[in-house]
Amino acid sequence: MAQLRIRHLLVAGGAGFLGSAFVRDRLRADPEILITVLDALRRPTAAGDLADLLEDRRFRLVQGDVCDRSLVEDLANRADATVNFASEEFVGGSRADAPAFARTDVEGTANLLEAARKFRHQRFLLASSMEVYGPLKGAPYREDDAIAPRTLPAAARAAAGMLARVYHVMHDLPILITHGVATYGPAQPVDQPVARVITAALRGVPVEVEADGSLVRDYLFVDDQAGAIARVLWKGDPGSTYNIGSGVQVSGSELADMILRLCGKPPSLKRFVKEAPRWSYAIETRRMRPLGWEPRTTLSEGLRATVDWYRKNEAWWRDRQAA
Amino acid sequence: MAQLRIRHLLVAGGAGFLGSAFVRDRLRADPEILITVLDALRRPTAAGDLADLLEDRRFRLVQGDVCDRSLVEDLANRADATVNFASEEFVGGSRADAPAFARTDVEGTANLLEAARKFRHQRFLLASSMEVYGPLKGAPYREDDAIAPRTLPAAARAAAGMLARVYHVMHDLPILITHGVATYGPAQPVDQPVARVITAALRGVPVEVEADGSLVRDYLFVDDQAGAIARVLWKGDPGSTYNIGSGVQVSGSELADMILRLCGKPPSLKRFVKEAPRWSYAIETRRMRPLGWEPRTTLSEGLRATVDWYRKNEAWWRDRQAA
Repeated sequence: MAQLRIRHLLVAGGAGFLGSAFVRDRLRADPEILITVLDALRRPTAAGDLADLLEDRRFRLVQGDVCDRSLVEDLANRADATVNFASEEFVGGSRADAPAFARTDVEGTANLLEAARKFRHQRFLLASSMEVYGPLKGAPYREDDAIAPRTLPAAARAAAGMLARVYHVMHDLPILITHGVATYGPAQPVDQPVARVITAALRGVPVEVEADGSLVRDYLFVDDQAGAIARVLWKGDPGSTYNIGSGVQVSGSELADMILRLCGKPPSLKRFVKEAPRWSYAIETRRMRPLGWEPRTTLSEGLRATVDWYRKNEAWWRDRQAA
Repeated sequence: MAQLRIRHLLVAGGAGFLGSAFVRDRLRADPEILITVLDALRRPTAAGDLADLLEDRRFRLVQGDVCDRSLVEDLANRADATVNFASEEFVGGSRADAPAFARTDVEGTANLLEAARKFRHQRFLLASSMEVYGPLKGAPYREDDAIAPRTLPAAARAAAGMLARVYHVMHDLPILITHGVATYGPAQPVDQPVARVITAALRGVPVEVEADGSLVRDYLFVDDQAGAIARVLWKGDPGSTYNIGSGVQVSGSELADMILRLCGKPPSLKRFVKEAPRWSYAIETRRMRPLGWEPRTTLSEGLRATVDWYRKNEAWWRDRQAA
């Protein structure tokens, strides 16, 4: 393959929390890139969150469904690489059922893969989740460990990843997969984990902590996650998977304590949700080092910036909570 | 759970080669069972192959799509267990692309799972394939080995299996998964592997053998495969996966030689297809023993019966080859 020179990126699900951070990062970093975002804009305020980008002539927002095959083909035909963030997890949340995930995550990815193959895209990156490995059993999961999802969002992402790998094997499509940890940061929708805790804390209502608070997760600041995905897209080895995370595990109780402290609220606001599954998650992130990426923002710095943002933008999230 | 007493089975894809063998086996074995088959009947002659069953009052054939959610719900509501054979592999074959597999295999299974959950089915069995483990690397694959599909049909089946496992974990749906080896027998569609070799041999045209003929597979006579699936449905441990095979690996060259000999044709008819991937497949089938199942038909007996059938039913397959 000739040297990689991506001129026009198709970003599916690019109006979401992480997708839009990735788009902003690329527009900042590369003056010549064109970006087309395909997004269903099913979150009521998604378009509004991208309003400032609409003035950038390098950026185009297309409202549509990743399952709309002719639309996907039309957009892929103008682009030379695809990045897919589209997942039912971000729009249907806990109300989404298996058929909804099968459509948005699996059929959507299948459409994008088929179009990328047809128009010989230079890269196809699937932004997936570390939850595809399933709950932690021993050491943090490495990229070659078995895929064993235990939730619907994770199974749908894993299915999309398997299709992508087949396109690499059968069609030599230069695919890349990222298994990212939980992302947090300013303007995260309030139904997503960290934002939910922060907005509850700021409102002074109880913050929910899974099980007895000892379950661990890895959290990564949104700009770090977006930057890592860009690094994998440009520097990753086609056909490969990359775990993206801080490499630091934090318990649910510790996370809640950090947030409550930053919000000036007492630890007694924690409410333990006993019926939650007792699942921890952790990944090994060493494979990112040769790509020259490492996280820039520590959890305490990132949470401070995030809490500050929610404090200053109360109208933004109070509106959304009412919606 | 109360004692298992399945009265009305919903069998998706039950007009296919293996599905219809399973249905016939059950109607023979259980005088009181009711069976509803949901099948798209996309194979032109599928309905004709089931014509004799239509006189059985315990049997009902519904032409429809597993992605038609309200139809699936309506049928599931009248049944108390589901068996899913529906796969794009059997109707789209090598012309099917990833979006087609995402719909038939993944969204179809998702619809059936959601309906089985809603109407509290006693069992949900997904008839999947041993190809989900991917090509053989060392010892034959066991049920707990990693899922690593390398073809589109295998990735789609694996995705369906992951969704089924999530329904077991999250909703306690009593799911079962079978990973079956290649099935063969009378009336197998002529575009499927063993039937393709037999009909080519009977016509006296070259029979295709993958690579240099040394790649191995396991083959199981259709009635044995159907009987094993029934055994898993009634005796299997909910949440579990069962490998189904003869446990005997045969090379492509050996298989072709056996068939050519039975057809009275010379070994020189073998044509080696060099560009085929060099993949062998094998599974460990010991988990079936405690269920009291073992294959009844050896490969040489099964091939003899199958070749006899194709010899006596030339009109059946000549018609289909022309279609």
